[in-house]
Amino acid sequence: MTVDEPISDYGFLADALDAADADAFVHVGDADADLRYLAPLSETTSDYGFVYAGGEATLCAPADATGGSVDRVAADFPGDVRREAADDPVGTRVVDTLADRDVADGATVLVPRQLPHDAAVYLESAGYDLASTPAVREARAVKSDRELDRLRAVQRAAVRGVERARSILRDAAVREGTLHWQDAPLSTERLRRQVNATLVGEGVADVAHTRVRVGTATARSAVELSAGTPLVVSLAPRGPHGYYGRLVRTFVVDSDGGWERRAHVGVESARRVALDELDPGESLRWVHSETVAEASSFGLTATEGDRVYGVGLTRREGPSLADEATVGNVVAVHPSATDEERGTVALADLAVVTEEGCELLVDCSTSLVP
Amino acid sequence: MTVDEPISDYGFLADALDAADADAFVHVGDADADLRYLAPLSETTSDYGFVYAGGEATLCAPADATGGSVDRVAADFPGDVRREAADDPVGTRVVDTLADRDVADGATVLVPRQLPHDAAVYLESAGYDLASTPAVREARAVKSDRELDRLRAVQRAAVRGVERARSILRDAAVREGTLHWQDAPLSTERLRRQVNATLVGEGVADVAHTRVRVGTATARSAVELSAGTPLVVSLAPRGPHGYYGRLVRTFVVDSDGGWERRAHVGVESARRVALDELDPGESLRWVHSETVAEASSFGLTATEGDRVYGVGLTRREGPSLADEATVGNVVAVHPSATDEERGTVALADLAVVTEEGCELLVDCSTSLVP
Repeated sequence: MTVDEPISDYGFLADALDAADADAFVHVGDADADLRYLAPLSETTSDYGFVYAGGEATLCAPADATGGSVDRVAADFPGDVRREAADDPVGTRVVDTLADRDVADGATVLVPRQLPHDAAVYLESAGYDLASTPAVREARAVKSDRELDRLRAVQRAAVRGVERARSILRDAAVREGTLHWQDAPLSTERLRRQVNATLVGEGVADVAHTRVRVGTATARSAVELSAGTPLVVSLAPRGPHGYYGRLVRTFVVDSDGGWERRAHVGVESARRVALDELDPGESLRWVHSETVAEASSFGLTATEGDRVYGVGLTRREGPSLADEATVGNVVAVHPSATDEERGTVALADLAVVTEEGCELLVDCSTSLVP
Repeated sequence: MTVDEPISDYGFLADALDAADADAFVHVGDADADLRYLAPLSETTSDYGFVYAGGEATLCAPADATGGSVDRVAADFPGDVRREAADDPVGTRVVDTLADRDVADGATVLVPRQLPHDAAVYLESAGYDLASTPAVREARAVKSDRELDRLRAVQRAAVRGVERARSILRDAAVREGTLHWQDAPLSTERLRRQVNATLVGEGVADVAHTRVRVGTATARSAVELSAGTPLVVSLAPRGPHGYYGRLVRTFVVDSDGGWERRAHVGVESARRVALDELDPGESLRWVHSETVAEASSFGLTATEGDRVYGVGLTRREGPSLADEATVGNVVAVHPSATDEERGTVALADLAVVTEEGCELLVDCSTSLVP
């Protein structure tokens, strides 16, 4: 259940080989996201090799991986699985597979740019010419229906995490300006752990990127929460199939209606602009700059960094600001404003680009009031 | 608090350069464990470059990483941090750094074998000769006191997770052979989520490798638990500083005293043998084979796969079976026996190799009875 099923249609690799007049595609590694996209490898701790040639996919599995996990991988892989001697480097196993697939010396082999150096040396020593291809990265930027289901599932878990934070903050009592919950002071760390417990209760696998922050400093230690201060709950949970969600909300308990209210109106407006502008064919750099401009029009200083970016098997992937939005892209829309003295107000959601524009993967209230 | 602090002493790189008559060491990447060992990069989603030359470490940070996270990295990095134009490939940034450090064309540059292929091409185009080095991997196999503290901390969280499972199983009622807890049937999935909630409550970042299994099949869907059947709770949580724990326990509710009792005695005995044999200078392959032999002497079939292996920033790392144990190695001792009809009994603990032999990082009861 926690094994990633791979994609099952390698047509995009066939297209890349045709376009480059190449004979094979090769990748090697363990936890690399491109390899996890190509093959069901979430559990591995050993190097696997992936070869696509002659319309067939082959996975070179190390015999030293425990039997059960290779069996699980083989059950889900839409191609041959070769189990090889543990002592052979994966580079030699990949070269053997190319030979068995009749890929001749001198042929061009496409590889992702992050192919491990030692595998490249084995391939070049065997007489193959290597050429980098962004084909896997580009394919990953356009999500299939199955990938969208997985992204929606983890994003729904993120909503539960935000709702848990909201409910704790709603129940919190203010005593001499500081927040108390269940008769003890409420710190960023205590709230973070409560949110994480909710996330894993929803089946989330990785909560390493849950942040609960006040102020502009990126505080590392627990900070006790106080009334009137913006609190940013920033979630990037990874679901059981390896896909990341992204959801950020900002709360203020007993707001005095000052900067944070204005900032929240501006950031909500910037969010609306980003979602309005995110259409097929639109440049992401344009969407980003319109988002920042909208926040500025409220007199706010936008937080630095990209305000739109692709999300999937990694927390940041294609499309990037250099790309145009394409149907099937999943994009985090993440407006944010910072004031050195008052703190940060931020919102983030995942949207999928559709023929008609874009739609949120999951709805979640943006209210500043818990 | 969740940022990994890097090691601060790169003496092992100076030694590797001396031994190979090389002038610099280079690595490039994002989530790679070797790079996380060299620099505090747990939060990054962009490529960083690490250069060691002339006794100085330099980190090439991409300007497109959000400002806060580069600031955090810079605060913890024991060397220069260069922020570079976002559009430059990290390979060119690393080449520029080498030039600034007066590393001349034609010099030998050591790299880990998994250096990304495109970075290797940039280095070779700039006239450097690349040679692979296992120096980082070897250094990672010997843990510092700070690393041991982090491993102990996550292993303590794992003990709480196992104790949570034990307590739920102790409280469970048997109704017509199946286990019920809090008035509902208890499944592997329900127990797994309870354990995971405990782990994240203890500050664990990643619970993706928590397994709760019955029988020999590597079941993917929830299975309702029944009395008399061995239940394996297998934990490999990753703590906030990036280090993994490893703890496996087997429980049987209302055992009828059959195969699982004998298997448990045999596996406990194999565990004792492994801990007795794990001494500095001892071959890990010998420790592994003695562990398997001890289980066999009870008439048990050992589960396939390595029964001893190094653990740290990854779930499996040095030392491997080909190595001799060295003071500071952290090794999972993981005896396991399988019967096709009765299931699996397994135990795993982390031990650190000391001058006198080895010691468990953390104690945890091995009892089969919850």
